[in-house]
Amino acid sequence: MTQYVVGVDFGTLSGRALLVRASDGHEVATAVHEYRHGSVERTLPATGAPLPPHWALQIPSDWIDVLRHAVPAVLAGVDPADVVGIATDFTACTFLPVLADGTPLCSLPDLAGVPHAYPKLWKHHAAQGQADRINELAASRGESWLPRYGGKLSSEWQLAKALQVLQEAPDVYARAERFVEAADWIVWRLAGVETRNACTAGYKGVLPSKEYLAALDERFADWSSKVDGPLWPLGGRAGSLTAEAAAWTGLPEGIAVAVGNVDAHVTAPAARAVSPGQLVAIMGTSTCHVMSGAGLADVPGMCGVVQDGIIPGLWGYEAGQSGVGDIFGWFVETQLQGGLSHERLTELAAAQRPGQHGLVALDWHNGNRSVLVDHGLSGVIVGQTLATRPQDVYRALVEATAFGTRTIIEALESSGVPVVEFIAAGGLLKNRFLMQIYADVLRRPISVIGSEQGPALGSAMHAAVAAGIYPDIRAAAAAMGKVQRDAYLPDLAAAEIYERLYQEYRTLHDYFGRGGNDVLHRLRALREEVSR
Amino acid sequence: MTQYVVGVDFGTLSGRALLVRASDGHEVATAVHEYRHGSVERTLPATGAPLPPHWALQIPSDWIDVLRHAVPAVLAGVDPADVVGIATDFTACTFLPVLADGTPLCSLPDLAGVPHAYPKLWKHHAAQGQADRINELAASRGESWLPRYGGKLSSEWQLAKALQVLQEAPDVYARAERFVEAADWIVWRLAGVETRNACTAGYKGVLPSKEYLAALDERFADWSSKVDGPLWPLGGRAGSLTAEAAAWTGLPEGIAVAVGNVDAHVTAPAARAVSPGQLVAIMGTSTCHVMSGAGLADVPGMCGVVQDGIIPGLWGYEAGQSGVGDIFGWFVETQLQGGLSHERLTELAAAQRPGQHGLVALDWHNGNRSVLVDHGLSGVIVGQTLATRPQDVYRALVEATAFGTRTIIEALESSGVPVVEFIAAGGLLKNRFLMQIYADVLRRPISVIGSEQGPALGSAMHAAVAAGIYPDIRAAAAAMGKVQRDAYLPDLAAAEIYERLYQEYRTLHDYFGRGGNDVLHRLRALREEVSR
Repeated sequence: MTQYVVGVDFGTLSGRALLVRASDGHEVATAVHEYRHGSVERTLPATGAPLPPHWALQIPSDWIDVLRHAVPAVLAGVDPADVVGIATDFTACTFLPVLADGTPLCSLPDLAGVPHAYPKLWKHHAAQGQADRINELAASRGESWLPRYGGKLSSEWQLAKALQVLQEAPDVYARAERFVEAADWIVWRLAGVETRNACTAGYKGVLPSKEYLAALDERFADWSSKVDGPLWPLGGRAGSLTAEAAAWTGLPEGIAVAVGNVDAHVTAPAARAVSPGQLVAIMGTSTCHVMSGAGLADVPGMCGVVQDGIIPGLWGYEAGQSGVGDIFGWFVETQLQGGLSHERLTELAAAQRPGQHGLVALDWHNGNRSVLVDHGLSGVIVGQTLATRPQDVYRALVEATAFGTRTIIEALESSGVPVVEFIAAGGLLKNRFLMQIYADVLRRPISVIGSEQGPALGSAMHAAVAAGIYPDIRAAAAAMGKVQRDAYLPDLAAAEIYERLYQEYRTLHDYFGRGGNDVLHRLRALREEVSR
Repeated sequence: MTQYVVGVDFGTLSGRALLVRASDGHEVATAVHEYRHGSVERTLPATGAPLPPHWALQIPSDWIDVLRHAVPAVLAGVDPADVVGIATDFTACTFLPVLADGTPLCSLPDLAGVPHAYPKLWKHHAAQGQADRINELAASRGESWLPRYGGKLSSEWQLAKALQVLQEAPDVYARAERFVEAADWIVWRLAGVETRNACTAGYKGVLPSKEYLAALDERFADWSSKVDGPLWPLGGRAGSLTAEAAAWTGLPEGIAVAVGNVDAHVTAPAARAVSPGQLVAIMGTSTCHVMSGAGLADVPGMCGVVQDGIIPGLWGYEAGQSGVGDIFGWFVETQLQGGLSHERLTELAAAQRPGQHGLVALDWHNGNRSVLVDHGLSGVIVGQTLATRPQDVYRALVEATAFGTRTIIEALESSGVPVVEFIAAGGLLKNRFLMQIYADVLRRPISVIGSEQGPALGSAMHAAVAAGIYPDIRAAAAAMGKVQRDAYLPDLAAAEIYERLYQEYRTLHDYFGRGGNDVLHRLRALREEVSR
């Protein structure tokens, strides 16, 4: 009998289901379901009331709809009885207040019109004031957990989001018996069991002391009781598929449901990155870097370092570049007004030699997540002449993101965390021109993941572990993971030129990013001042 | 009897004649004649032979055609007998080898196919090697004239152009009995007299010692004998219109022909800028600043300081910005591929408040003429985000050129040469949005010239002086010059914001321009290295 597993990847605008053969990772079928409400940023669907700036919510029923539509769609060609497990991954931190039984507060009739009762999507950025206060207080108290998160907690994370609810809607905060990551909520819906996966808890859910919490806000002292709980290992079995979830999905009741996971992190085993030093870069609108290390080191500018955070038994390091594909998109759509396509710019840029455009850029148009952890930074480009063409700038922006990746790798290595392999995943893989530049800039071979559905495949592998087909994720990765080694090799002549340009990048990086000239912050402050 | 004078302005691609009433400067008629051969940059018209890169020549018969077509055209409504004088201004340094009677070498049948026999237009940039050698030797010998030219002679000037002829075509150099500025050659054609006007001789024709010249090249030791001669004051009468020139122009034989002049400098009196401290900025694709001062001061980064160079009796200071309108044109045509017009960008940019775009740029896309005197520099822009729109960049570029102008004014003032009035002239005057930004950035009122034909009007005024209608150019300026005082007044709130942005500009200016980070030169060198 052939056994199958299902992985479901919950993204920002849609969810994807993938049916995978458990023996070898063969991808049998995939289906996408777009969320009816997408990312809720303008008005609350229930009432039409406008949301304040920087808000981003989601609607739990949209997630359930993925289970009801995308999962059945992938079962068409197989006997559902042959499916032995299901696992999920989610954006994070996507976080919601619930009752003790997991009922979202937003589904209570009297709270349907209250924005704070809804799940806050990862990119909800309206808790910056709370995050600032959290960081200020933690720095002044010398809180020991702060360095492990690059010295700053993000406004995207649990603590800031929860504090915002408390301070702006204390009644909602009081009604919430639990706050839960969507990654765990969906598992709760599938298996009927509340779990707390090691990944989101570790990366997004730091739990400071009661004293610290009370110093933030007296009413916040009890925060842990609403969110804490035992940590569940990735790949563990959360429980068995409930009758209700079996009806939604068309899967057999009672099959294994795996502990939840995060979309980026779950991609690592899908690319067979289960050993220390195998870095997976999920390259898309932004880039997320996940890598396991043998031990704990303080690496400046990481998003977080979490025990068992990616692969059980290892320390999971996460770093990121907050703008990558988004920067190219901005240049094409906003700056050039669509006058030239990505394809045409790539073709023109590819025709020139490294160094020929005479430009160096800093890739901070959306701030810098690693290693500067500073969202107040912005983009820089130097060297433009009257002969500078759009393809020159485009290429310089691509190169700048490669330099940003190299900066992260060097931060890891110089802190004693070796990077032994660079594995690329994500949508930018398709751009061979960009990938070659990365190989040349990084001066190392690039491996590429062998699947276009990295997160869903990674989830399916965790389902296989939870179902007992494999003893652990390492074994699952060996059988089901997909990677093409040395897909790109550095061109040595190009690498020599990029070495020089990278040194220019680093000099500008430190000048503009480490206080040599704080002009970028002053310009941002001025922009806000005059826009008031 | 109403008396008239004619001013003729010889530009890069065409010549313009202007008929002016001598009593009050009323502009009666104007006509333009396009040069048949324009700027000769690709192939030599006589043979079709290709020219090397960076060459730019002109054809003397094109200039004569301006006298034959544009001048008669402006006489249509008046009695030519009422015209009492003619004067001309020219681009500079535009420079040609001639026989002792003024015959251009290029008109000799056996030299018609020799590129070096032709006039070299101001923008001939193929003598950079000679200019480098000239500057290197002058600096090593501590030549006393070097500081007066901002520490560097341009490859555009006489010495480099002549040395190129000597070294690349020694036979042409030997055949040349004289080398003459086109500004003086055209006067020679009109009046039959060789003159050497104080303006081009002073700004473009530095004459070093025989020892220095011999050290450059032994064959160059005699250079002075081919170019030297008495200096003729601006507004002086070079001679009387010859019968031949009367036949070309339709003007009466024997009327006054004034000494030659340069297009930028001759604009000063047209805007009534005849007193110390009245700075005239001729703002177009690039900007030229001309101002008279009471005494000689070493001002870093000037193009030159010349006694009687603009107004007899005063020291003429010249500075420049090598890219202004050219930068806006590059952004619209090359970067945006024409997707948005100047008009639309201006409209959108004008709708925002100072500081709102969050950007600062350095306006060095075509190098920096003043005050850094460094054509190896290039443009910089800092502060771009994913929300940065084309109009934001456009506005930042406009502001950057205003900051560049302020830098020049501050260099003059901090060297003890006060700037008491800022008078704008040139094509950018039409852009009221830009002019207001200049007033806000400079924190001072801006006067504007009252003529669209500043150079031709200035020439006509010199014709009136040469004809004896006015005792000197000051009197002519009072009667015929046109200026609107306080056409733009600074907005104090905007000026406060720009004060802060200007400080950012200066910090970046010194960092990138004075050796804090020599990245712009290294990028340029790399560009040339990899393009070889």
